[in-house]
Parts: sequence; structure tokens; C-alpha cells
Amino acid sequence: MSKLETLADAFHDELQDIYSAEQQIAKVLPKMIKKANSGKLSQALTAHLEQTKLHVERVASAFEETGKSAKAKKCEAMAGLTKEAEETMAQDADADVADAILIGLAQKVEHYEIATYGTLCTWADQLGYTNAKGLLGQNMDDEEKVDKLLSNLSRHANLAAKA
Amino acid sequence: MSKLETLADAFHDELQDIYSAEQQIAKVLPKMIKKANSGKLSQALTAHLEQTKLHVERVASAFEETGKSAKAKKCEAMAGLTKEAEETMAQDADADVADAILIGLAQKVEHYEIATYGTLCTWADQLGYTNAKGLLGQNMDDEEKVDKLLSNLSRHANLAAKA
Repeated sequence: MSKLETLADAFHDELQDIYSAEQQIAKVLPKMIKKANSGKLSQALTAHLEQTKLHVERVASAFEETGKSAKAKKCEAMAGLTKEAEETMAQDADADVADAILIGLAQKVEHYEIATYGTLCTWADQLGYTNAKGLLGQNMDDEEKVDKLLSNLSRHANLAAKA
Repeated sequence: MSKLETLADAFHDELQDIYSAEQQIAKVLPKMIKKANSGKLSQALTAHLEQTKLHVERVASAFEETGKSAKAKKCEAMAGLTKEAEETMAQDADADVADAILIGLAQKVEHYEIATYGTLCTWADQLGYTNAKGLLGQNMDDEEKVDKLLSNLSRHANLAAKA
């Protein structure tokens, strides 16, 4: 494996990771949308799928300042999250319970992204990658907003699941 | 697979997931401590290892209100995160860069836990599992504090890595 001599190398490596993660999310979201019972949840996930496609483009653009071409490196963490999501969705659950579970799964995905974009933004700032910092910061803001929206939906989904 | 009929079933299922995740973290942290170069980072991870052992115990106690015995169900997401951490740590990196990377990895783990405890606390509240909510809330507070501490360390580690 290549030696990570500088923070710029680490940044490039991490960017390849989130590029893969966003692509994996774009593939799993349609399955989650299909599984959602509540119209509001389905709508929120559909909007997030559109947003995720934009995030993939922004990450691709963030590669520019590294001087290397945009390339994904399989994100094992997102592969694990996706596997967990698919296994959980395969379980036979009542509609409201299924929605409560789906929200929980989506929030795990969001938090993976929030952690990763947090690291990437700190590093971009220190490396003077102004353009990348702006692009990745926009993605991070989006993920944080989706996480909050899901928390709000969770309260309703869960109350229905409890009844 | 068993049918998840109620929110209580989903809560029990998710509790088995975090019970596995915490146990996996207790196994990977010693490897991260060994890899840490900065004394402050090593100290922070060592303290978190002790905390993680307590978290495992708290999760075990949180099973009581479910009326079922404490049992782990392999958390695939944490298995993925652990795989990613081990692959990344296996890369040949300069000391300061290695520390910056380690902090990023640890924060991904923290965020998985924050997301999961967030869901568990909401569900415990709605199910009237007062004791479980208290225990899981304490774990969540710990994870959020560690995440903030790591963000602070990150600024120093990264500045050194840049120099």
C-alpha cells in the first residue's frame, strides 16, 4: 500500500472513501424508499436521494485541488452499514415499526457522513483547499439537516409504532 | 427471521446491535492505542477503552426492562468500521499523519454510537423504559464528549501533520 506521507495524502485517501460511500448510499436509498410506508418518510428519503446524487458530483469536484483524478476506494464502513440495513429491511416488520427502524438506519448513514465530512473539512481548511472545503461543507450541512429532519419524523413514526 | 411486531421488539433488536458494537470497539481500541504516537491521543483512547468496558455493562443492564437476557447480535456496521480502521492502520504513514487519521477513524466509531444511542433513547422514552433510557443516555453523553475531545485533538494533530 502507498505511504501516507502528508496530510494531503490522507485527505486524498479519505476523499476516495466518501466518494465510494456516497455512491453506495445512492444505491441503497431506492431500496429504503420502496420499504417506507409513511408518505412523509418516503418523501424525505426521495429528496435525499436527489441530494445524494449532487453530493457525488460535489465530491468529484473536491478532488480538483488534490491534483489527482476523482476515484472511489471501497468504503468498508458503508458496506457494513448497507449490509446491516439490507438485513434489517429483510426482517418481517409491521408498517409503523418498519418505518421507525428505517429512520434509525438512515440516521446511522447520516452520522457516518457527518463524521467523515467533519474530518475532511478540518483537513481541507488546514491544507488551504478553499474550494474543496466549501463543497464538502455544503454536503456536511445537508447531512446534518437530514439527520434533524429524520429525528423529527422519528417521533411521529415511533408514536404510531407504539400504538 | 423473527417478526418485529412492536417497537419493543425493535428496541430489543437494536440493543443487541449496540451490545455487539461496544464489544467490537473494546477489541479494536487496544490496536488503536498501540498505533497512536501522541501521548495525548494515546491517553484519550486509553481512557475511552475503560469507558467502553463500562458501556458494555450498562448496555447489559439496559436489557432488564425488555424481559429478555443480554445477548449480542453481530453489528455489521461496526464490523465494517473495524475493517476500515484496520486496513487504514496497516498503511505506512508518518507519525503525525497516522495520528490525524486515527482521530478520524475514532470519530466515525463515535458517530455510529451517537446515532444508535439517539434512536435507542427515543424508543426507550416512548416505551417507558426509564432505567434503560438513563443508562443509554449516559453512554450517549460519554460518546458525544469523546467526539468533542477528539475534534480538539485533531486540530493539534493535523497542524503537526501539515508542518
